[in-house]
Amino acid sequence: MKNFADQLIEAVKKKGNAICVGLDPRLDQIPKFNVENHIKEGGSPTEIAARSILEFNKGIIDAVADIVPVCKPQVAFYEIFGADGMRAYEHTLKYAKEKGLVTIADVKRNDIGSTAAAYARAYLGEMELFEGEDEVVMPIFDADSVTINPYLGWDGIKPFVEEARKYKKGLFVLVKTSNPSSGDLQDLELKEGGSIYEVVGNLVDSWGGEDIGESGYSFVGAVVGATYPQQAKELRRMMPNSIFLVPGYGAQGGGAEDVKPCFNKDGLGAIVNSSRGIIFAYEKLEGFAPEAFADAARQACEEMRDDLASIF
Amino acid sequence: MKNFADQLIEAVKKKGNAICVGLDPRLDQIPKFNVENHIKEGGSPTEIAARSILEFNKGIIDAVADIVPVCKPQVAFYEIFGADGMRAYEHTLKYAKEKGLVTIADVKRNDIGSTAAAYARAYLGEMELFEGEDEVVMPIFDADSVTINPYLGWDGIKPFVEEARKYKKGLFVLVKTSNPSSGDLQDLELKEGGSIYEVVGNLVDSWGGEDIGESGYSFVGAVVGATYPQQAKELRRMMPNSIFLVPGYGAQGGGAEDVKPCFNKDGLGAIVNSSRGIIFAYEKLEGFAPEAFADAARQACEEMRDDLASIF
Repeated sequence: MKNFADQLIEAVKKKGNAICVGLDPRLDQIPKFNVENHIKEGGSPTEIAARSILEFNKGIIDAVADIVPVCKPQVAFYEIFGADGMRAYEHTLKYAKEKGLVTIADVKRNDIGSTAAAYARAYLGEMELFEGEDEVVMPIFDADSVTINPYLGWDGIKPFVEEARKYKKGLFVLVKTSNPSSGDLQDLELKEGGSIYEVVGNLVDSWGGEDIGESGYSFVGAVVGATYPQQAKELRRMMPNSIFLVPGYGAQGGGAEDVKPCFNKDGLGAIVNSSRGIIFAYEKLEGFAPEAFADAARQACEEMRDDLASIF
Repeated sequence: MKNFADQLIEAVKKKGNAICVGLDPRLDQIPKFNVENHIKEGGSPTEIAARSILEFNKGIIDAVADIVPVCKPQVAFYEIFGADGMRAYEHTLKYAKEKGLVTIADVKRNDIGSTAAAYARAYLGEMELFEGEDEVVMPIFDADSVTINPYLGWDGIKPFVEEARKYKKGLFVLVKTSNPSSGDLQDLELKEGGSIYEVVGNLVDSWGGEDIGESGYSFVGAVVGATYPQQAKELRRMMPNSIFLVPGYGAQGGGAEDVKPCFNKDGLGAIVNSSRGIIFAYEKLEGFAPEAFADAARQACEEMRDDLASIF
């Protein structure tokens, strides 16, 4: 039976690259003409912001959907506009899916059992509302996969595993994050040997162990930052069947050589995220007016594709 | 200068108890007459659900606001209804504040630097939208405090500390959570001695160390589960100036004796959360029809107040 990893690997093979486009639509970097048009149309400030980021996202998705396999909207940049922003988040996930992209809801949610179950149903599965003849069963965010934080241990993860298994969806558990102080906790050495990120890596490996798809990969993946290639190398060895979601390429300083250890020898097993470097490429690449932001994003994807291809 | 802890301690002293009412409005436990009325009024399923939980919350808040100091809406039970649910979350926080309750947005957010900053502004501070003459500066969720997850280390926490300091608000960092498998990671013993939850406890103590209020407490608090009284005892000693937010009382199995170690000798320093045990008390306590759910919640608060008073 095919699992989420099979779907992801198939998309990577079809597009010929492992790029994940990070849809982090920071309002102050969205082309001014877009935002100004929405201001003219009126509405509350958060409505205007939500319409602006959704239009921007659609432009990016339209421009890159035929050449990249995956996108990852970071929920914080939607949630900051409250309910209006969360509506734009729902619509962004839906639109990306319609255009054939595999979606990762980057929400890093975490909580104890029954609360984690609520998140899992909302992001991956379906909600059951009301009872008897009024009963409605409906998806809410309906992402293909979700990022989660492991600090609460197995009973905070289990509901996500169950929901993902039921709906053929995927998880990416934070293991070694890309930020400068990720080592504060994650690198601490344990009495029994190994570090915390290695313990989490082993847990991720075991959580997905029973569900290896036809591609050889499990539906429980790991977030491993491009900024820590040495740790990535160890983790790759420890978790041969997990797909790595790799942040930190581009704007955060990671290059193609840094992400290489995240891949298996077959050139698979990782997807590499770039957010600002792609969606706001019009600010950096030469020859693009703000109106051509989507073309610039496409060119940035092509350059990233060639850069990643150089490592194999 | 007064900080968040001073505001919280003042509320605890004024009401004469340290109860935090967990507003986790699980739709299937809300009195049927409420939900049925909203179904009759019409709208999309998520709109109906959102109106139902908001009305329920207002009933609870009206019934308990004069006798308890704090409430904590758990965002998962709102987020599951998508954008409509998040609107109900905004309104719940606002209503609770208007009625004089100190609010904790239980969101357990976590991310790297600039993304964490976005969350911090959304939940604690203000958002700056647009530029020039269109500029708007506005609060979004405007909670008094927020729960956060420490797995990403200091640069995921720092933006919350900065925003909390700027707006006189508070943080509760997950240290030792109340769930059965919280020990999977949190209890691991380190090579240098101590366990992970102790390291996090020490970090919390240092993150808040420069900002001790008039009450003797810092604005950086800790989440410490009632279900682990022995660990709570150690943490209380290690973090004398942090306020503990204590989940796990009541439905999760913790009793008054279990939460005692979370308090300092002055009877302060902790707030004890109960969710289901209070808001759905009408299902358990004798003599309450569903229509009297709010009265039942008030009686449950009174019983919890007396139970907690018995430990000093």
